[in-house]
Amino acid sequence: MAVYTDVSEGELSAFLAQYEVGRLHSYKGIAEGTENSNYLLHTSTGSYILTLYERRVERADLPFFLGLMEHLARKGVSCPLPVHRRDGSMIGDLAGRPAALITFLEGMWMRRPTAQHCRAVGKALAELHRAAADFPLRRANALSPDGWRKLWDITRARADEVEPGLAREVEADFADIVRKWPTDLPAGIIHADLFPDNVFFLGGELSGIIDFYFACNDLLAYDIATCLNAWCFEKDVSYNLTKGSALLAGYQSVRPLEQREIEALPLLARGSALRFMLTRLHDWLTVSEGALVEKRDPMEYVRRMRFHRQIASPAEYGIGLA
Amino acid sequence: MAVYTDVSEGELSAFLAQYEVGRLHSYKGIAEGTENSNYLLHTSTGSYILTLYERRVERADLPFFLGLMEHLARKGVSCPLPVHRRDGSMIGDLAGRPAALITFLEGMWMRRPTAQHCRAVGKALAELHRAAADFPLRRANALSPDGWRKLWDITRARADEVEPGLAREVEADFADIVRKWPTDLPAGIIHADLFPDNVFFLGGELSGIIDFYFACNDLLAYDIATCLNAWCFEKDVSYNLTKGSALLAGYQSVRPLEQREIEALPLLARGSALRFMLTRLHDWLTVSEGALVEKRDPMEYVRRMRFHRQIASPAEYGIGLA
Repeated sequence: MAVYTDVSEGELSAFLAQYEVGRLHSYKGIAEGTENSNYLLHTSTGSYILTLYERRVERADLPFFLGLMEHLARKGVSCPLPVHRRDGSMIGDLAGRPAALITFLEGMWMRRPTAQHCRAVGKALAELHRAAADFPLRRANALSPDGWRKLWDITRARADEVEPGLAREVEADFADIVRKWPTDLPAGIIHADLFPDNVFFLGGELSGIIDFYFACNDLLAYDIATCLNAWCFEKDVSYNLTKGSALLAGYQSVRPLEQREIEALPLLARGSALRFMLTRLHDWLTVSEGALVEKRDPMEYVRRMRFHRQIASPAEYGIGLA
Repeated sequence: MAVYTDVSEGELSAFLAQYEVGRLHSYKGIAEGTENSNYLLHTSTGSYILTLYERRVERADLPFFLGLMEHLARKGVSCPLPVHRRDGSMIGDLAGRPAALITFLEGMWMRRPTAQHCRAVGKALAELHRAAADFPLRRANALSPDGWRKLWDITRARADEVEPGLAREVEADFADIVRKWPTDLPAGIIHADLFPDNVFFLGGELSGIIDFYFACNDLLAYDIATCLNAWCFEKDVSYNLTKGSALLAGYQSVRPLEQREIEALPLLARGSALRFMLTRLHDWLTVSEGALVEKRDPMEYVRRMRFHRQIASPAEYGIGLA
C-alpha cells in the first residue's frame, strides 16, 4: 500500500495544463509501489500514471530514472513512457513534491508466476540490459556492499529480535560475501528490483515492466540473481528448479552468460538475498505496526541466504536445463 | 485509504467470466472508501469498479444497496450501475468475500467545494430522494438514535481522553436531542453519507454520486442536515452561510421543504453531527495509530454540535437566502 499525498482537482488541473494530455476525467490514488504516491488518471486522450515522489527518492536521480524509461521505451522495451511538459521537461511540481506523468501500461502482475512467466521475465531482463547499454547517464547502486553495511550498522543490534542468533549468522555471511564480491564481471544498467509486482502480463505475454526507481549501474548478473530470488522460490522458500532454469534460459536466449558470470551466480544470489533481507529487517524494526507501508518478513530472505550458501555448483540453479 | 484484500489475476478472471464485460486488461487497488476493498478495472468494454465487501457491510444488505443503485441509475440519477452476472444476480464471491461489479463514473470529488458545488449537491440530493421514492426494498438506519446509544455506551468512558469534559457535554446533548427527535417528518430513502468524496464533478457539473452503503429509510430532512455538516463548514468549523443557502436552495428547487422540516433543521443537524462525532470517536479510540483506516478528529463534529446548539432560528442556515 502506497504512501499517499492527496491532491486537489484544482492543483492537478493546473499541473496538467503544462502537458498536452487533454482534459482530466478522473484520478484515483492507487495501491501500487511503496516508495511514492501514485494516481491512475483518465483524460480525454487516454490513461496515465501520475507519480509524486516521496522522501525516499532523490530529486537529483529523477532525470536518470525518467530518462532511462524514455530511452528503453524508444528502443522497444515495454515500459512506461514519460510524458514531456510543454516546456520540454519531464519533471514538474505538485503538492510540494517532484512529480511526473507517464503512460499507463495495461496488464496484470502475477501473484503466482509459472515457469512460462519466469522464462518471459528472463528474456525481458536481457533485452532491458541490451537496450540500456547505450544510455548515457550513470547512477551508482545505493544498495551495493557499502549500502548494505550502512543498513547492517543500524539493524545489527536488534537483529536477534527477529530470530535468536540472527546477528551472528548474518555477520559471518556478510563478511564472507563482501570478501568474495566480484568486480570484474560485465556491468551496465540494471533494474535492481524486478519483482513480480513490477512485471505485467496480458494474455500470457509480458506486457510491461514498471518501477525503475532502483535502477543503477552494477553487475548485469546481479540483476539475474535478484530475479532468481524474486521469481523462483515457492512460499515455503524452496527453490523451484523448473522456474529457475526457465528464467535463466529466457535470459540466455538474448544474452548468453559468460562462464565467470555463471560461476559467480551463487555468490551474487547470496548478496542479493542479503540486500533484500537488510531492507526488510530495517523496515521490520523501524516501521510501526499497522502503518501504511506493508511489513515483509526478513526471514524469507534469511532462508534464501541459507539456500544459496549451501549451493555446490551453479548447475543447481538449473542453468542449461531448459 | 481503503482496507485491502489482494486478488490474483486467475481468481479475478474466473470471477469476470460470470459477466459480459469483455477481457480483463488491468486492475488496480484504489484508495477509495474506508469500508470495502475497491479495484478500478479496465476491460475490453470499458472501466468498472470491483468492490469486495469487508466485514462492516452485511451481505444481507447488498440486494438493497445494489438494487437501489440500479433503481436510481435507471431513473436518471448519475450513480454507478451494478452489472448483472450471466445468471442474473448482482452479487458474486471473490477471495472469500461477497463482491460486485459496477460501472465506473468519470469525475473528481471536490476537496474544496464552492457554493456552486453546494447548490448542485442540494439539487442532486432532492432528485435522489424523489427517484428513490418508489424503490420497493426497505432498510432501517443502523445509525439512528438507537445506534448512537450503542456507540456512546462503548465510547463514553474514554471520551474525556479526546477533550476533558467531553463525556458530560455529549451526555447532556445526547439526552436533549433524543428527547426532541422528530418522528413525523416526510421520510423515504436517504443516502446518509453524502460527503464531498462521494460526489463527482466534471467540467463544473455534478457527474456522479457514489457509495450507497449507508443508504436506508429515514427522515429526508436528516439527509439535508448531514449535507450541511459535510459541505457547508470551513476548515475552522465556521458555518459558511453562502454555501448553506446555496445547498438549501438547490434542494428546494426540486423538492420544497415543508415548514415543519425547516423548523426541525437545527435539531436534525445536531443529531447528524452527533452521529458522525460518535463514529469518529469510536474509530479514534479503537483504531491503532498508523493503521490503514484514516483517523479523523471527532472534535470537528463536537464543534458542529456546539454550533447547531446555539442556533436560534433555522434562518441562520440561510434558508430562503439564495
